[in-house]
Amino acid sequence: MEQIAVLGAGSWGTALSIVLADNGHAVRLWGQRPEQIEEINHKRTNEKYLPGIQLPEAIVGYLSLCGALESIETVVLAVPTKAIRDVLKKVRECIRQPITIVSVSKGIEPDTHKRISEIIEEEMGSLLQDVVILSGPSHAEEVSLRHPTTVTVSSKNMKAAERIQDLFMNSQYFRVYTNPDLIGVEIGGALKNIIALAAGITDGLGYGDNAKAALMTRGLAEIARLGCTLGANPLTFSGLTGIGDLIVTCTSVHSRNWRAGHLLGKGKPLDEVLESMGMVVEGVRTTKAAYQLAQKLGVKMPITEVLYDVLFNGKDPKEGADSLMARVKTHEMEDLVNILGK
Amino acid sequence: MEQIAVLGAGSWGTALSIVLADNGHAVRLWGQRPEQIEEINHKRTNEKYLPGIQLPEAIVGYLSLCGALESIETVVLAVPTKAIRDVLKKVRECIRQPITIVSVSKGIEPDTHKRISEIIEEEMGSLLQDVVILSGPSHAEEVSLRHPTTVTVSSKNMKAAERIQDLFMNSQYFRVYTNPDLIGVEIGGALKNIIALAAGITDGLGYGDNAKAALMTRGLAEIARLGCTLGANPLTFSGLTGIGDLIVTCTSVHSRNWRAGHLLGKGKPLDEVLESMGMVVEGVRTTKAAYQLAQKLGVKMPITEVLYDVLFNGKDPKEGADSLMARVKTHEMEDLVNILGK
Repeated sequence: MEQIAVLGAGSWGTALSIVLADNGHAVRLWGQRPEQIEEINHKRTNEKYLPGIQLPEAIVGYLSLCGALESIETVVLAVPTKAIRDVLKKVRECIRQPITIVSVSKGIEPDTHKRISEIIEEEMGSLLQDVVILSGPSHAEEVSLRHPTTVTVSSKNMKAAERIQDLFMNSQYFRVYTNPDLIGVEIGGALKNIIALAAGITDGLGYGDNAKAALMTRGLAEIARLGCTLGANPLTFSGLTGIGDLIVTCTSVHSRNWRAGHLLGKGKPLDEVLESMGMVVEGVRTTKAAYQLAQKLGVKMPITEVLYDVLFNGKDPKEGADSLMARVKTHEMEDLVNILGK
Repeated sequence: MEQIAVLGAGSWGTALSIVLADNGHAVRLWGQRPEQIEEINHKRTNEKYLPGIQLPEAIVGYLSLCGALESIETVVLAVPTKAIRDVLKKVRECIRQPITIVSVSKGIEPDTHKRISEIIEEEMGSLLQDVVILSGPSHAEEVSLRHPTTVTVSSKNMKAAERIQDLFMNSQYFRVYTNPDLIGVEIGGALKNIIALAAGITDGLGYGDNAKAALMTRGLAEIARLGCTLGANPLTFSGLTGIGDLIVTCTSVHSRNWRAGHLLGKGKPLDEVLESMGMVVEGVRTTKAAYQLAQKLGVKMPITEVLYDVLFNGKDPKEGADSLMARVKTHEMEDLVNILGK
């Protein structure tokens, strides 16, 4: 049994707190809104994010960040990618001993093009023991219902990854694999949100399952192309954090990125879509970062480029989707060989 | 403009006839039931297989096989895998010049373990010009509605594949890639039906999207493992006939194999399920063939093995699904490296 702090009381942070509590650990779940922490501690629910779910007693809500971090060695970081730097600056002020951070957020930072583990290393400096990434096909809603789920953990230090594997793994519903390809795991997790937005758009346009499957296949190829250029192992994209996560994010109604794309495909303007979601849509920011990276590195990413134009240059979604379909006839293997950047 | 015979007036044969007719070709659609051919020629519909779809005038229904094949160079073979040998024996009696056969059926033959192109070569002998395989993520229902669809053609003779690419390709809704990896294209198309049956079972058991995505990811790995042992290019399984087709077959309500699995997961006995489908469920027969092949070649195929026990040895579907989830914790890359049979 260990004391673990989970920072971020959204749906994923709360669902992972349930896993840790089910495994016998004591969880300090930190959030910033007093009424939410009150609800967690007194009603044992977090209705906005996990409606209908009763939280185990071993989860205690904290409003004080330094209180949640007191004498803690392992911190699960489950805040939106955009908020990571700010939260870590505050974390640094609370702790004196290095901590291990398990990041469960997905994204790449626009402009710096840093992965989450790099942002964490930069912000934490000598106060960081290890950073471990947890990623894979996993909707928070299903995890909180104890539906069978399989994820992957990765780290520069695989001993740390294995320790985190043991913390989260259980024989009832939560399986954890390890994968030493940190870059591949992070890139796969981040970029799948771009393809989910695009898949939502084609679904919103009523293009059907055939078109969506083709889009996802081509999408995985361009994710792998960028990932391998950055140093990832191509096999990672055939695994849980590649195909697996892509499938869940593109085909489930639980997916926020798919839902946002779906509304765009139906003709709703971007600002209205983002407002109506009420939660962070990581794919929008990641599209910007991936677009910049692809330009910088000279990697062909046709879906990302079209989505960038739809999101940031006012391109019509239907026109964008049609231009993707209308590319000239070609040899599939030529495209697939491009996965490896050859 | 070419005269083309399509043998088999089920949903896929009819949908591909529509594509050919839309591309300006004259199609002779052969079927064995007089009332169906009557309906095609007089009402211009094929309600049982493509409800609500109006057939183009360029499609003419034929009851006589030799009539349909008269002076024909290109034949699209769209009959259930089980019926292929019988139909080809009759085809041989009708023709005197070698023909090119485009096979659009999926499967491996139990006991002989032959792929469709091998069965066709064996049956046709010197009366075969070329055999071309057309495969990929494509529900007939969506093709008949002219929804955007992308498929792959493959052949030992890529010149023949390119000729078939030109016959089917159009700029409105039907894109055709070529891929020289005939073994990979055929194995991917056949074995995805096994995973679709298994995914249907977990869906029927109510296990959710996380479990299904994990199953599909592991399923693709075992398909690739068998395929590469048989000589396929591993990249093919990352393409349209691999991941793409797997996604469509496992996640769409149009999929018969998924639907059959879903009923099994809900607790219906196999014989009742097959009877209630009213169409051929290729995955059942393919599971037997793949199971035999895996045993013979010593390839690890855990999902196929469990499904085989459920289908042919009366294993309880829930017990089978749980045994797949409960495998010991492991290193994801070790599994992934197995994709390449190493």
